[in-house]
Amino acid sequence: MAVIEMNALSTILCGSFSAKVFLPEMDKLQLDEEGMNKKYPVLWLFHSDGGTSMDWLTTPAEKCAVSNGIFVIAADVQHCLCTNMKYGPKYEEFMAKEFPGICRNNLPISDKSEDNWIGGVGTGAYGAVKAALEHPEIFSACIAMDGIYDMDKICKRAKTGETVVCHNEESLKAVFGNIDQIKESENDVFSLAKKCSGGKFYITGAKGSVYRDEAVALSNLLKDRAVYIETDETEADFSCMSTMKNAVAWLCGK
Amino acid sequence: MAVIEMNALSTILCGSFSAKVFLPEMDKLQLDEEGMNKKYPVLWLFHSDGGTSMDWLTTPAEKCAVSNGIFVIAADVQHCLCTNMKYGPKYEEFMAKEFPGICRNNLPISDKSEDNWIGGVGTGAYGAVKAALEHPEIFSACIAMDGIYDMDKICKRAKTGETVVCHNEESLKAVFGNIDQIKESENDVFSLAKKCSGGKFYITGAKGSVYRDEAVALSNLLKDRAVYIETDETEADFSCMSTMKNAVAWLCGK
Amino acid sequence: MAVIEMNALSTILCGSFSAKVFLPEMDKLQLDEEGMNKKYPVLWLFHSDGGTSMDWLTTPAEKCAVSNGIFVIAADVQHCLCTNMKYGPKYEEFMAKEFPGICRNNLPISDKSEDNWIGGVGTGAYGAVKAALEHPEIFSACIAMDGIYDMDKICKRAKTGETVVCHNEESLKAVFGNIDQIKESENDVFSLAKKCSGGKFYITGAKGSVYRDEAVALSNLLKDRAVYIETDETEADFSCMSTMKNAVAWLCGK
Amino acid sequence: MAVIEMNALSTILCGSFSAKVFLPEMDKLQLDEEGMNKKYPVLWLFHSDGGTSMDWLTTPAEKCAVSNGIFVIAADVQHCLCTNMKYGPKYEEFMAKEFPGICRNNLPISDKSEDNWIGGVGTGAYGAVKAALEHPEIFSACIAMDGIYDMDKICKRAKTGETVVCHNEESLKAVFGNIDQIKESENDVFSLAKKCSGGKFYITGAKGSVYRDEAVALSNLLKDRAVYIETDETEADFSCMSTMKNAVAWLCGK
Repeated sequence: MAVIEMNALSTILCGSFSAKVFLPEMDKLQLDEEGMNKKYPVLWLFHSDGGTSMDWLTTPAEKCAVSNGIFVIAADVQHCLCTNMKYGPKYEEFMAKEFPGICRNNLPISDKSEDNWIGGVGTGAYGAVKAALEHPEIFSACIAMDGIYDMDKICKRAKTGETVVCHNEESLKAVFGNIDQIKESENDVFSLAKKCSGGKFYITGAKGSVYRDEAVALSNLLKDRAVYIETDETEADFSCMSTMKNAVAWLCGK
Repeated sequence: MAVIEMNALSTILCGSFSAKVFLPEMDKLQLDEEGMNKKYPVLWLFHSDGGTSMDWLTTPAEKCAVSNGIFVIAADVQHCLCTNMKYGPKYEEFMAKEFPGICRNNLPISDKSEDNWIGGVGTGAYGAVKAALEHPEIFSACIAMDGIYDMDKICKRAKTGETVVCHNEESLKAVFGNIDQIKESENDVFSLAKKCSGGKFYITGAKGSVYRDEAVALSNLLKDRAVYIETDETEADFSCMSTMKNAVAWLCGK
Repeated sequence: MAVIEMNALSTILCGSFSAKVFLPEMDKLQLDEEGMNKKYPVLWLFHSDGGTSMDWLTTPAEKCAVSNGIFVIAADVQHCLCTNMKYGPKYEEFMAKEFPGICRNNLPISDKSEDNWIGGVGTGAYGAVKAALEHPEIFSACIAMDGIYDMDKICKRAKTGETVVCHNEESLKAVFGNIDQIKESENDVFSLAKKCSGGKFYITGAKGSVYRDEAVALSNLLKDRAVYIETDETEADFSCMSTMKNAVAWLCGK
Repeated sequence: MAVIEMNALSTILCGSFSAKVFLPEMDKLQLDEEGMNKKYPVLWLFHSDGGTSMDWLTTPAEKCAVSNGIFVIAADVQHCLCTNMKYGPKYEEFMAKEFPGICRNNLPISDKSEDNWIGGVGTGAYGAVKAALEHPEIFSACIAMDGIYDMDKICKRAKTGETVVCHNEESLKAVFGNIDQIKESENDVFSLAKKCSGGKFYITGAKGSVYRDEAVALSNLLKDRAVYIETDETEADFSCMSTMKNAVAWLCGK
């Protein structure tokens, strides 16, 4: 298994962060003198709230890196819904700006948007779609697996006392500030999908999931920018086990 | 080097956490049949905000575990000032209740207060002192190295726009809620030192540090419950490199 | 993901070793006072030569630990064919004696043979079967996935200059000493299967694999002590992705 | 702490290896567009037999990387005395050729000999000196801390049944083949020091150590290519805690 665990300092997060980096295999890397200046495409991945970058170790992420000759880089984004927190670090800025910059200084990866793709699962899919919509100059395509997108609904459920996607009312306030005004805000991906015109999206939903309809609705809003794939998963498991290979092949134009 | 990296799930943190566990060496562990029921003393350590549990790898923490025949366990406590966050997870509850419980189920460590000690460096020392004062039934002694204690002063500096101990005004609000009413609150260790009567404290301050006077003031308030040690460190480095061995020896009654 | 990475010292290996420990989830661990003395069953796993304990992160090992309420512990056993090396460390002794002892002192696991099972994949399956046959007092059952068993054949191929299971002639001599006398020796699992009477075995083979016939032959020699399962895997991947859940369920009597 | 843990595949080792990479801090890395093509100097470090790359976490290795703006890269080299094993992997070839090549493809490090330095502690110092003497076209300078150099003496002691530097007679045979003919062989650094003319060496010895005289003898043979520094350490600890900063400053021409 070719994987790097990176621990480094972030100015934006005011502290350390951890990331996993899956390498293209050595036979894909060009080991000759000239090859050392080649820059590889990279898929940036975000886990769901309540998880960590370690979750990707149990998915085909590493195989996808190897078989497509790309880097796959997954940061720990903690408990922030991939969002610039109202009370806390600016995670979206970290994800879209600082983290790629740190990695580009340490790894032979391309900084061209056509070689930079973003993806996620669960609330990480929400973050990936949001970042792809807002930063098409950085990420040209997005894979969103079993996403949880409707933050307005999440906030309403939390206000009834429910713990949802590992959040409660207080922690959602720390992320969004006013949790009564998500709709049409910068944190509403449905609204962003209408406003922002760029990007290409590969969106999966699981037939039995309560979040399946959100994925469909998002795909519809994105119109021909989105491919929607429905999976049969009946398990509680996120379906990225089965869909990730196809999603990454789609990114790589295969 | 005998060290465990533990990744597990926390209900209180609503997600995964990471910890480092330094083991007493094998020759200290009693390897015979009966020995398997021995329970070891444990020092719980907290890093400073902006750091991680990995920071303890560069200190004598491992040597202290080995030479004293104790477990030393350091959790990642992120960016929370070891506090039950107003907008975010309840870290103090995690540190004092859930995390020891998880570890006691997985490691041969004692649950008696006389065998449970808490310690920290920087803002981790603040958290350790606070936890020791509030939970003497859990932690019987505390080592606080180069502590940063005056949260009222920290909040006032942050309100001027300064970034201090890796926090700004918003992130301090996420931790404390109202940052204008720290004094005499449950987050004011000077106030707690007067109110709470239990515990034994080993407090170090560095001669040249801007935080030295806070350590002295805290020691004075704790009266004969505290030992105060001043170090000569002139470097930016926390002095735990030189003082930790003595501090742990003091815990172990040597 | 609940996983421990353990780094500790081994007397037998004359140095450090690394291991991954997958924990039963917290809701399976009994968190009350009395529960702290419960000892859990444990599956000891060995990777194939050329791999590391990290390989298990991409398998259902963690899910098997959680869903069955057992510990799954996987050591790094390097490049030794799980064997007491002629020129090098005594890995079989480490696997069967020292390593379980170290873990029993650090984790709440049972030392009864009926609660201790061994398993492996590739050459790790060879090592697991060998250890189960030779140490029935330690391991009561064994799961051997896509095993590579015929060391005599491996040695003969290596003598022609071929690199096989990540070994060449010299490295096989380091492991076995005389590589012309594997048959009927203590390193011949087919011979051991006839001589040793204990154990229960769950053996899988992949339909398309060149090693499939070895698994069948071993199963036949073990007679009614073995269950043989054939898988359809057509990929180069070891089939433990699909068979591991069933194998562990079999261990747990489900 | 800015550190990478790399796990990747080696053709020469026929398997996975692990390494720690200490990064120059972000403010040393040039984060502008052009800076991304800068290549940094690198210090390659080797631990002593019986240890792992993790040992470097407790030394000033990370601080040396940061304060000098260089990469410090430490591979796990197991139990091989940094030598092309007679019966086992060719570690010297791995250290001097394959591993730097893998890293150069993944990290922005220079491949010029004047920017590549090698170092080690204990038997890792033996390996570092040997590699620097044999490969001056790769490594232009060497820091050798508390080295253990006299392999002939080690082998003689092992033949009496003693375990020395974590080796016994058999494991030394696996490394060297004929352990009666170390002197004047390619594994005798004293002999190499006379034969090979290149390199610059910073050699430290501890006053109270049984290996101190070997360090002095080696320095004398290297004549004006070597700087010899004697330390006062009385502890069992390797002295790299105190000498490493000076050694790295010397490498960086400070």
